[in-house]
Amino acid sequence: MIVQKLLTLPSFEKGSHLITDKLLKVLGELPETGLLQIFIQHTSAALAINENADPTVRHDMDKAFDHLVPENQPYYKHTIEGPDDMPAHIKSVLAGSSVSIPITGKRLNLGTWQGIYLMEFRSEASPRSLVLTVIS
Amino acid sequence: MIVQKLLTLPSFEKGSHLITDKLLKVLGELPETGLLQIFIQHTSAALAINENADPTVRHDMDKAFDHLVPENQPYYKHTIEGPDDMPAHIKSVLAGSSVSIPITGKRLNLGTWQGIYLMEFRSEASPRSLVLTVIS
Amino acid sequence: MIVQKLLTLPSFEKGSHLITDKLLKVLGELPETGLLQIFIQHTSAALAINENADPTVRHDMDKAFDHLVPENQPYYKHTIEGPDDMPAHIKSVLAGSSVSIPITGKRLNLGTWQGIYLMEFRSEASPRSLVLTVIS
Repeated sequence: MIVQKLLTLPSFEKGSHLITDKLLKVLGELPETGLLQIFIQHTSAALAINENADPTVRHDMDKAFDHLVPENQPYYKHTIEGPDDMPAHIKSVLAGSSVSIPITGKRLNLGTWQGIYLMEFRSEASPRSLVLTVIS
Repeated sequence: MIVQKLLTLPSFEKGSHLITDKLLKVLGELPETGLLQIFIQHTSAALAINENADPTVRHDMDKAFDHLVPENQPYYKHTIEGPDDMPAHIKSVLAGSSVSIPITGKRLNLGTWQGIYLMEFRSEASPRSLVLTVIS
Repeated sequence: MIVQKLLTLPSFEKGSHLITDKLLKVLGELPETGLLQIFIQHTSAALAINENADPTVRHDMDKAFDHLVPENQPYYKHTIEGPDDMPAHIKSVLAGSSVSIPITGKRLNLGTWQGIYLMEFRSEASPRSLVLTVIS
């Protein structure tokens, strides 16, 4: 069986944000066994799974992505939407537009230290639309 | 229900290429609700979802990956297949060997600006085989 | 139908390790057609699909990730768990916490040169827990 839900997140500031609880609220009761896929319908933000406890991890993740993919490189041609736009597209390919998580015993089977990140790469972001697909 | 199709893409030149239309043609009618997984059976090319409108984004994506993963690094030992081979393997891990996209109302539920990229990392590439799996 | 299995891998040394055979042993008989998702329940190791033949590829992959995400950067705030910890979190987002592979004719439909990598990013790692979900 496939069940889908839509979730529009309010605009977040640039950086990594834990959204596990928001997702669980929208998902409601989960099947006994299955797979959840979460898809972001945008190309300048991404989804990832990472450490859920220490806010400095989210800080460092954002900084590290800025160093990996710097703004204002001489070879960028796609510059009309601002200096953070092309880097945001590149970062979104590096982190990925979806995450998939097993469902076991009616719960997301995340490790103890895992949470779901929205990685916002734009400085002035819009709300972000997610599609949640539960396969069971 | 699971339906699979195979698609062999002709050899592309190095760079990012939009393949959304080619995929839709092979897929034919989609189920009302489901998930499409696209898998590339190679380790020196990748699949990604990114901006579908401005060709300069694809240009910059290719250049950015070249800067992220430069050729001819002194620590490369895997050099027998040419200077672009090991970088291609590394880039394929960064971008990923598959993408998954929700199907909603018999259509791929991509955002307005999203398309499916074949990222070709070899300078003289071969045709690339994809496996398309539709879960409904 | 969904079938799940758990696999705890013994601790590996830092680097990329081929785990295809270990996974096949745990999976047992596969369905005629389907999709396998493998999920790692940790945030300082990752899963990837890459070249399965030449050990120097795994060597270079590890070195390349070290150069992409160096230790001891002045902007890291998350330093209490050692110099390799924050880089490990960043690398795990770059490579990803899961891989999905089509199943065709009761076999993983990998390309000739593809294998499944455990990418261990910690110098003194623990055993790693994987969740295997087979959808058919």
